[in-house]
Amino acid sequence: MRYAWLPMLKKPVPDTLQRPLDAAKFEARQIADPVCFALEPALGEGYRIEKAGDGYTVAGGETGVLYGAYALIRALSCGEALPEGVQRPYYPLRMINCWDNMDGSIERGYAGRSLWFEGDAFHYDPARIRQLGRMLASVGINVLCVNNVNVHWPAQQLIGDLLPDLAAFAGILRPFGVRLMVSVDFSMPLQCGLDTADPLDSRVQAWWKQRADAVYAAVPDLAGFLVKADSEHRPGPNAYGRDHAQGANMLARALAPHGGALVWRAFVYNCLQDWRDHSVDRPCAAYETYMPLDGSFDDNVILQIKNGPYDFQVREPESPLFFGLRHTPMGLEFQLAQEYTGQQIDLYAMPPLWREVTDAIGKDTVRAIAAVSNLGRDENWFGHPFAALNLFAFGLFAWDPDGDPAALIRCWARMTYALTADQEAALTDLLLGSRAVYERYTAPLGLCWMVRPDKHYGPSPYGYEFQAWGTYNRADRDAVGVDRSGRGTGYACQYPPELAERYADPEKCPENLLLFFHRLPYGFVMRDGRTLIQRIYDDHFEGAQQAEAMARTLEALELPEPDRSEAARRMEKQLINAREWRDVINTFFHRFSGAADEKGRVIYP
Amino acid sequence: MRYAWLPMLKKPVPDTLQRPLDAAKFEARQIADPVCFALEPALGEGYRIEKAGDGYTVAGGETGVLYGAYALIRALSCGEALPEGVQRPYYPLRMINCWDNMDGSIERGYAGRSLWFEGDAFHYDPARIRQLGRMLASVGINVLCVNNVNVHWPAQQLIGDLLPDLAAFAGILRPFGVRLMVSVDFSMPLQCGLDTADPLDSRVQAWWKQRADAVYAAVPDLAGFLVKADSEHRPGPNAYGRDHAQGANMLARALAPHGGALVWRAFVYNCLQDWRDHSVDRPCAAYETYMPLDGSFDDNVILQIKNGPYDFQVREPESPLFFGLRHTPMGLEFQLAQEYTGQQIDLYAMPPLWREVTDAIGKDTVRAIAAVSNLGRDENWFGHPFAALNLFAFGLFAWDPDGDPAALIRCWARMTYALTADQEAALTDLLLGSRAVYERYTAPLGLCWMVRPDKHYGPSPYGYEFQAWGTYNRADRDAVGVDRSGRGTGYACQYPPELAERYADPEKCPENLLLFFHRLPYGFVMRDGRTLIQRIYDDHFEGAQQAEAMARTLEALELPEPDRSEAARRMEKQLINAREWRDVINTFFHRFSGAADEKGRVIYP
Repeated sequence: MRYAWLPMLKKPVPDTLQRPLDAAKFEARQIADPVCFALEPALGEGYRIEKAGDGYTVAGGETGVLYGAYALIRALSCGEALPEGVQRPYYPLRMINCWDNMDGSIERGYAGRSLWFEGDAFHYDPARIRQLGRMLASVGINVLCVNNVNVHWPAQQLIGDLLPDLAAFAGILRPFGVRLMVSVDFSMPLQCGLDTADPLDSRVQAWWKQRADAVYAAVPDLAGFLVKADSEHRPGPNAYGRDHAQGANMLARALAPHGGALVWRAFVYNCLQDWRDHSVDRPCAAYETYMPLDGSFDDNVILQIKNGPYDFQVREPESPLFFGLRHTPMGLEFQLAQEYTGQQIDLYAMPPLWREVTDAIGKDTVRAIAAVSNLGRDENWFGHPFAALNLFAFGLFAWDPDGDPAALIRCWARMTYALTADQEAALTDLLLGSRAVYERYTAPLGLCWMVRPDKHYGPSPYGYEFQAWGTYNRADRDAVGVDRSGRGTGYACQYPPELAERYADPEKCPENLLLFFHRLPYGFVMRDGRTLIQRIYDDHFEGAQQAEAMARTLEALELPEPDRSEAARRMEKQLINAREWRDVINTFFHRFSGAADEKGRVIYP
Repeated sequence: MRYAWLPMLKKPVPDTLQRPLDAAKFEARQIADPVCFALEPALGEGYRIEKAGDGYTVAGGETGVLYGAYALIRALSCGEALPEGVQRPYYPLRMINCWDNMDGSIERGYAGRSLWFEGDAFHYDPARIRQLGRMLASVGINVLCVNNVNVHWPAQQLIGDLLPDLAAFAGILRPFGVRLMVSVDFSMPLQCGLDTADPLDSRVQAWWKQRADAVYAAVPDLAGFLVKADSEHRPGPNAYGRDHAQGANMLARALAPHGGALVWRAFVYNCLQDWRDHSVDRPCAAYETYMPLDGSFDDNVILQIKNGPYDFQVREPESPLFFGLRHTPMGLEFQLAQEYTGQQIDLYAMPPLWREVTDAIGKDTVRAIAAVSNLGRDENWFGHPFAALNLFAFGLFAWDPDGDPAALIRCWARMTYALTADQEAALTDLLLGSRAVYERYTAPLGLCWMVRPDKHYGPSPYGYEFQAWGTYNRADRDAVGVDRSGRGTGYACQYPPELAERYADPEKCPENLLLFFHRLPYGFVMRDGRTLIQRIYDDHFEGAQQAEAMARTLEALELPEPDRSEAARRMEKQLINAREWRDVINTFFHRFSGAADEKGRVIYP
């Protein structure tokens, strides 16, 4: 017995489903054996599956029954044992953040235009949105933030004149247990007749309270608001001399009576930095901003922190806020959209990343988990057919962060393609190793931001070097990197002592972060005896070679069309990209260092 | 007595003027003394001014009378002697090429949106277009190409469904002796039902002939078509295995019966170059393409060649085609839009450039002269109030290329502002020297393309280095530049022997082109004894210093508002830009060379 994931989701969903139980019953029809459902409201999102005669009983809360139905389908489809006992999600908020603009574009979208916006309005095919709801529910995602955190006009009106449209959209997703969230513009009161957006001004507080009341009257189960403030030219409380706790709490108090969460992004830094000033170091910024505020946030605020201190680079250490904040409700933000990680052209399976992060910070450090969406209007939703894996696995990971990355990938492969055991193992291994390969040909040793500015695809090792973004490698003829130890910018000191000490010592620092934390001469001797420059050459040569091996593996997979052709077409581009990274980075460092490759491979002059 | 140029042009022009003589009479009303006009059709664009009693007689051809009226106003306004004898323009075609798109944007426009396009249609204020006609006529410009050489849909329809609108627009400019030109899309037959655009296909030839007939029925005095073909992804004859003479002649033959010119841009190169391949050198491309075709072009074709072999960089040698082609009608293309020369923020007066070029190639080498427009919808037409100079002087230069650059600048200054003699001299000197200052802080020694990709403003010394545009400096720890001598790419060999020899020898090569033609070690000793690296440092430090001196000069000028504030505001940005160029380029070369500045100035690490 086999139920394919995306192919299954393409089948029409009737528009008559009212609640998750209806959806659960609809889905259960795919199962040959009879399935009974038992609503146990106290279980909430939890469920329990039991074998009952020649069929199954799924008991669960309001949405738990639906999650149970999908879990049953998954277990049967993957030939796995049924989960034992009551299953509950580890993170209560499992969120997808969509950076969709109302003009239909998606910021950093690589799978076509928005599924629900076009022409500055909601504009969608309800049948496809039902499929979307099903897709999200099938992996346990329960919140969808519908609009870009950079709120471009008229998206402000999603909590104004466009509320009826927002409510209609929410209604389509409600039977799938998916609640909406909206990104709001901190300065919106200014656009609505007030002369200030100061969070301590009582008129502003009243304005937001009235706004929240109106929003919840239209969408009673809204998950909350998402805010990017005082970041990359977004308005925020700093304009009024207020801090981020004052800004966030003001909004949170407007939402609290309705049970809504206020998700406040911790992505702050000076985006107008002078490259000449080596004393400012962008990764330090968030910790400096939020540590003094620890304990100041209301309980329905979630400070949503990107996994690393920069911005979804291929390799970053975990944000020190996860170790430092003790009295602040935190959320963890990943990015499924492959902005810096291959743009859904190059293969980049993310489960190993997520597991690394939660292992490092402790999964219980955060109370919510979010990921920037990789969805779009493309026929296959994701651009690259394998990019579906990242959404699929993210949902399951958010439910159970102890899940094994390899198992998540295998489950997706099995639910997507009918491959032989060998082929399934080959596909699983291909994806499981894809992140390491991408890292090796783009950014081994933790050296970030060698990507082309604007596009964020392809190498440009000095493209960011003299810009205002705070993203410098400072390569010269002798050395490369930024010293972030206590002798340098002090970033490493933001970590707890043991970690700080490890990061601050080039002999102890994990090699994949060596050039994140240190400025080293090209002749620096690595632990295995190779010089730094030789290691740079080796990694880039070997990374590109590994990409070629991946291409051969892919070629041998008997995938159905159009996935086979689509994946092959993108792999051709990935190979060009991998060779470009190999040659550009090697040439760049060869021009600076003058060091020959010990193995005599071609480094272009 | 004084008539200001732009201020004068702002006054309303009646919509009743039918022909240039009407316009001439209208303009003459500004002159206190009586002016009589005598039409002498044989004079064509020529005129003769004579003192007659207490007034003047202006004799001239159909448009000559108007040019005579403006010349009289100019002479009186500038306090100069009347021109003696019959005055005739040196170049019969004096063209402005507008890169206006029908959506209202302007490619490389720095003075606001299009004056005549918006929302994929003609959309303009007729009164302002009459002012535009007057502005162009007042300096003798007689052709305006209305749309971008990159023909984006629906601009193809300018010679299709939009012909009535084109004709109406032409009618507004006709009384000012300004004829329209249209940029056409070589592949247009494919969009109109044919299955080919092959220039040797008789159906294609017939299609273009029919199209030309229709166009000339609507706009009988159209100057012709402008074409960018087989360049930067534009369609062209190469797709059908035909050469550029075959492509151009096919179009030229459709225009010939109507007296139209076919202007064919010589801007060809491989824009998908592999940076690894040092054997391909972009500046070589046009010569390699067109020399074999010399003598193959019909007489109503004009091969329009940019002044240098690259693309309007701050310093380039003259295109070798001007020296090589013997039997091809040529046009010379400049760019008033300051794409790479400060974007109408930084001061950059162009008359010295034009004079250098025509002195070098011989003014009689070309039969037409064109410039990419710097106009836009800004209140002052040009963004920077001083950028008006470049259009003003270009027109007069195209009429008389022997004009002295300083005199052209002084004439513009006098016709624009009522300054004291000292201040006028200061403004003239400021502008006359502005190009050299800009060159010094951005690209001394002829090293091009260190500008930010995409924006083309501000430094990014390696921004283009690994891209596909064929624009490399190949800086490394030992040397910088590309060897274009016979030992290198051979580009220098495209020049006549004497020039080729001069360019090919680093000891004889003009220093402002040294790094255009040569790859040299940082320790290379320049003619004055300084090393190359010291010279790079000195030029960038001194260029930025000179910009600061310019700012002081500007500050002391008693300009009227809003020009004073506008110029000051832009000068602030220019100073930031000049310092950025100084520091980024010096740091870049310091990081590579490791050489200290002999004078101990600050070079940031």
